[in-house]
Amino acid sequence: MNVTVRGRTQHFRTVAFNRARNSVLLVEQRLLPHEFKIGATKNFRETAGAIRDMVVRGAGAIGATAAYGLAQGALAFRGSDLEKFSRHIEAVYQTLKAARPTAVDPVNAMNGVRAAMRAGQTVEEQQSLALAAAEEFANEDVRHCEQIGQHGTKLIRNGMRILTHCNAGWLAFVDIGTATAPMFAAQAQGKKFHVFCDETRPRSQGATLTAWELAQQKISHQIIADNAAGHLMQRGEIDLVIVGSDRTLGRTGEVTNKIGTYTKAVLAARHKIPFYVAIPLSTIDWNLKRGFDIPIEERHESEVLGAWGVISNPQSANRSPQSARRAYVRVANPASRARNPGFDVTPPGLITGIITPAGIFKPGELWRQRRELGFTR
Amino acid sequence: MNVTVRGRTQHFRTVAFNRARNSVLLVEQRLLPHEFKIGATKNFRETAGAIRDMVVRGAGAIGATAAYGLAQGALAFRGSDLEKFSRHIEAVYQTLKAARPTAVDPVNAMNGVRAAMRAGQTVEEQQSLALAAAEEFANEDVRHCEQIGQHGTKLIRNGMRILTHCNAGWLAFVDIGTATAPMFAAQAQGKKFHVFCDETRPRSQGATLTAWELAQQKISHQIIADNAAGHLMQRGEIDLVIVGSDRTLGRTGEVTNKIGTYTKAVLAARHKIPFYVAIPLSTIDWNLKRGFDIPIEERHESEVLGAWGVISNPQSANRSPQSARRAYVRVANPASRARNPGFDVTPPGLITGIITPAGIFKPGELWRQRRELGFTR
Repeated sequence: MNVTVRGRTQHFRTVAFNRARNSVLLVEQRLLPHEFKIGATKNFRETAGAIRDMVVRGAGAIGATAAYGLAQGALAFRGSDLEKFSRHIEAVYQTLKAARPTAVDPVNAMNGVRAAMRAGQTVEEQQSLALAAAEEFANEDVRHCEQIGQHGTKLIRNGMRILTHCNAGWLAFVDIGTATAPMFAAQAQGKKFHVFCDETRPRSQGATLTAWELAQQKISHQIIADNAAGHLMQRGEIDLVIVGSDRTLGRTGEVTNKIGTYTKAVLAARHKIPFYVAIPLSTIDWNLKRGFDIPIEERHESEVLGAWGVISNPQSANRSPQSARRAYVRVANPASRARNPGFDVTPPGLITGIITPAGIFKPGELWRQRRELGFTR
Repeated sequence: MNVTVRGRTQHFRTVAFNRARNSVLLVEQRLLPHEFKIGATKNFRETAGAIRDMVVRGAGAIGATAAYGLAQGALAFRGSDLEKFSRHIEAVYQTLKAARPTAVDPVNAMNGVRAAMRAGQTVEEQQSLALAAAEEFANEDVRHCEQIGQHGTKLIRNGMRILTHCNAGWLAFVDIGTATAPMFAAQAQGKKFHVFCDETRPRSQGATLTAWELAQQKISHQIIADNAAGHLMQRGEIDLVIVGSDRTLGRTGEVTNKIGTYTKAVLAARHKIPFYVAIPLSTIDWNLKRGFDIPIEERHESEVLGAWGVISNPQSANRSPQSARRAYVRVANPASRARNPGFDVTPPGLITGIITPAGIFKPGELWRQRRELGFTR
């Protein structure tokens, strides 16, 4: 995706690899939207730390980071003893896996890299294969997002006002993103449209990350409080909703996504506004039979009780200086506590279509299309 | 309402009057929830300033403040020339009216005080009548809220989990409040229940004011992100919704309230959860024929783009020191802008009942009951 730094526009991937320095390059997502910086990890331990400390986040992005991290660990090995190398790889794998224990993407990505390595007869061959497999994982992530864009852009007509929730943009993937992919594709085709970004409390990823991406891409947009979408729909100011998904049940078409997604789907259904979910194939769960069984993470209450930002003057809507101090402010009553469910489940009856790299499907069609969607059992 | 300051619990009204000092006493609402302080205005100009600068906010509270401010201005007059007194009163009236030009409550309250003053033959008599009328206005506000509590408590059963949005509590009135009145009454009857407070972005009145009131009253409660209510309803964790209203159309039963109210009503209807609106009679609009014609205030975008709070450590959920520094943090992408509609309109079909001082009515019954509800034309 294109980012303008000090007036110069350059293309970046969220996750990339520097072969000469054996280093994983990562957009420092914790500094956004107030500062854009690419960090470089010196070794696989630092790469695991970047996953653990949320330098990098989002399904595709942490998958690619783990794949590159495994290759980085493999390339750092000195010697030709295959058995020692194999033990080393196991240690690298476990270190990266432990960085985000509940996430499935790093494990899937690393399993792919390990499977590819087996074709190598020597340490050197396996090292090369590891890097090639990691590069292929990242490239496939980009290709899938491009395909989502090609299918999804058909939904966007000139003059449309699109609502999105949370961040399923390029920062969550290696490039392009899922919910944003149709918008970027439509922009490339010269279509004019406007995006309303839900703030997405409590972590505000819409106001911070999605708004930053749209601004970098020069796409017309406005941030709204999560409370405002219903009113805008009622007044006829929203034509289309596109969101991402953390986990989609292949058997039922139920979609798990950031808390508040379900609410937007209920509102869209009431106002007969098309509600689409853009998903990469890796987030389809082909096993679970009921959305109600999806465990909903209860996150730390500090997210609800306050907010992170840079200390500013509220009257100056303009760019804050990069030197501005980041701070957490406690907003809520000091003696009160919070509930903080991180995700919710949207039933298939509220979903107009699911945009996948293989095409747009009704939620109930996923199971019938499972071969095309990569289900191999 | 009871407030505990340094371990000592005392009863306070949001707005009161000190006859000896000719001073209006106001809870300094801008310091809450981080500090509780009662301010005293020295003259009617300071009282107008307190209305203008949001020291006091909420329909009933600003009405009572304006009524007391008019009495305060009357009492400050020296002399016995009725014509000079009358010109002075007009100046006081205009000063207080200009403090919040769009609000109807201060004007209605002051008109009542002026009408009462006419029975006086001397300046001194009119001064006494002004204060008596202001006291009566405040007392009636309290009585109406008590009556809302008596009717509304019938809806609350032991073990219920109640959702509320924004602040229609005692801080918005002279005492007790409207949406909170049934809760306080139920508590007084020994009922056990739990309240979920919507944070209510962008101004977070639920997380700050309502949560503070409930904590002072020792009512079990938790703050949730506005995004979370749909999920909690879906999982069967909410039994009842009670909100307030800024303006209710007597002819249609449509309810204008803080942005996000409509969304909660749509969700409640989907989950067959009773949705009640508690209103004082003064906010019924008997003239307007269509909710769509209610002008929706577009507020400053800084509210959406950031948040006010005290700089804290996010890991310490406990009471922040009173010395903590209040700050505004810019949360959103610096280059992005916001839309900020302040209110929305909920149609009568989504409202189970309207709790008034005169009883609980279906929204469609208001017009038929208009005499009982104080419509006098």
